[in-house]
Amino acid sequence: MSFYSKLNAAWAKSDSALCVGLDPDVNKLPAHLKNDPLGIQKFCIDIVDATADTVCAFKPQIAYFAAVGAEAQLQAICDHIRTQYPHVVLILDAKRGDIGDTAALYAREAFERYQVDAVTVNPYLGTDSLMPFLQTSGKGTIVLCRTSNSGSGEFQSKMVNGTSLYKHVAIAAASKWRDIGDTALVMGATYPQELAEVRGIVGDMPFLVPGIGAQGGDIVSAVRAGRTDKGTGLIINSSRAVLYASNGEDFAQASRAVAIDTRDAIRAANN
Amino acid sequence: MSFYSKLNAAWAKSDSALCVGLDPDVNKLPAHLKNDPLGIQKFCIDIVDATADTVCAFKPQIAYFAAVGAEAQLQAICDHIRTQYPHVVLILDAKRGDIGDTAALYAREAFERYQVDAVTVNPYLGTDSLMPFLQTSGKGTIVLCRTSNSGSGEFQSKMVNGTSLYKHVAIAAASKWRDIGDTALVMGATYPQELAEVRGIVGDMPFLVPGIGAQGGDIVSAVRAGRTDKGTGLIINSSRAVLYASNGEDFAQASRAVAIDTRDAIRAANN
Repeated sequence: MSFYSKLNAAWAKSDSALCVGLDPDVNKLPAHLKNDPLGIQKFCIDIVDATADTVCAFKPQIAYFAAVGAEAQLQAICDHIRTQYPHVVLILDAKRGDIGDTAALYAREAFERYQVDAVTVNPYLGTDSLMPFLQTSGKGTIVLCRTSNSGSGEFQSKMVNGTSLYKHVAIAAASKWRDIGDTALVMGATYPQELAEVRGIVGDMPFLVPGIGAQGGDIVSAVRAGRTDKGTGLIINSSRAVLYASNGEDFAQASRAVAIDTRDAIRAANN
Repeated sequence: MSFYSKLNAAWAKSDSALCVGLDPDVNKLPAHLKNDPLGIQKFCIDIVDATADTVCAFKPQIAYFAAVGAEAQLQAICDHIRTQYPHVVLILDAKRGDIGDTAALYAREAFERYQVDAVTVNPYLGTDSLMPFLQTSGKGTIVLCRTSNSGSGEFQSKMVNGTSLYKHVAIAAASKWRDIGDTALVMGATYPQELAEVRGIVGDMPFLVPGIGAQGGDIVSAVRAGRTDKGTGLIINSSRAVLYASNGEDFAQASRAVAIDTRDAIRAANN
């Protein structure tokens, strides 16, 4: 099954555009898990089990695992999601970008080692650096376009022939990359005007939308600016607000409540 | 000791601008190491021991380890270099780039887990995404500017107000990032004219120069275009040509011979 097919099925089955981001900061884990050597894994799996029926996707952020040498725990979490919730899209947030020979190894990391459905990548090195991802059959390549951070405009919004750099990335995605493999874009919820403009460029291409919650992006603005004509096309990520809803033993129930509220707020915004 | 100080001392001690890149492709290992579970580690450590007196730096490429779950072997190799060759600069080639909170975790991966002197990063997300690297005391931040791959111009050479995007990156490095922390740039040997232009922008800032050997960059052109007024400033990387000089049991001696030849060719080009 292609990434696009799996994503469309996940949207249909869950009736949710919510993606829960798995960014397990060891300093923020509930007290009873902080000193557990498998604390990260147990924490994430409990969050996954508590929220799986509220989401279209899960998105582990590999930096949180790499910083503390927890690759085996990341692998266990990915295995759990794939086997227990095979209809939920699994995205590795890695923002990889390197020359082609090396990019092929990063594609192997994402698609063979962690067996995810899609991975985030950085376009700065150009189309040849994206080819190993785009050419992996059935997988999704989610390219950074306009990121959610406050300084993202420094280079992304530089004007090239009257058009912002990030729009040149969107144009390449729509005119070239989509013909090679299933392509999506990272578009920050913090920039709704840019969301609308890029939607105008790429038609129904999916957007991974970080930046709601802790980063300050507004759900209503992001949904109305970013959705397709059919009222879909969005994978809206929330990490910290869901993960750290409580730091007690009830953390998973608390995260479920926030996930449901967020899913419902996205649904309401789409009406 | 700061990254700049360590690099200057490494150049002086070795009289070499050569950096050996550690890109251990399991399919290209010598036959007797291919099925050894610690083959990558043994291969790299033998290469390191055979070439350490010919280089100013070693540069492990993390993708080759991440693809096959060999983080522990990467850590062992970094430990070996730091303890046995403490005067040699250790660079993690990771090309990381993410929003600030996540970038802090990637800085931790590079500087605490692998304890390297410097790491390569991607500027697409802007200055705020680079801050956790720049603000780590004593460490080096090596920012992608004009990369060595054939498609690197697609975005990097787009003209912004009459100036290429990669030059805007160089200007930011010289005018802002260097004031925060020790900054260097990735400048591909495959683009000597761009090397010369960026050298004119950034003064004596160090360049990490990939692209000689297998990628086709010419040593004489790269050295003459990229060196500072004092005939220094370059960390010239060779990976495949050194690593895979022989696939027999003599692989380390063969790699030493190529490393010496490359070091000498760089010296000769600088006369």
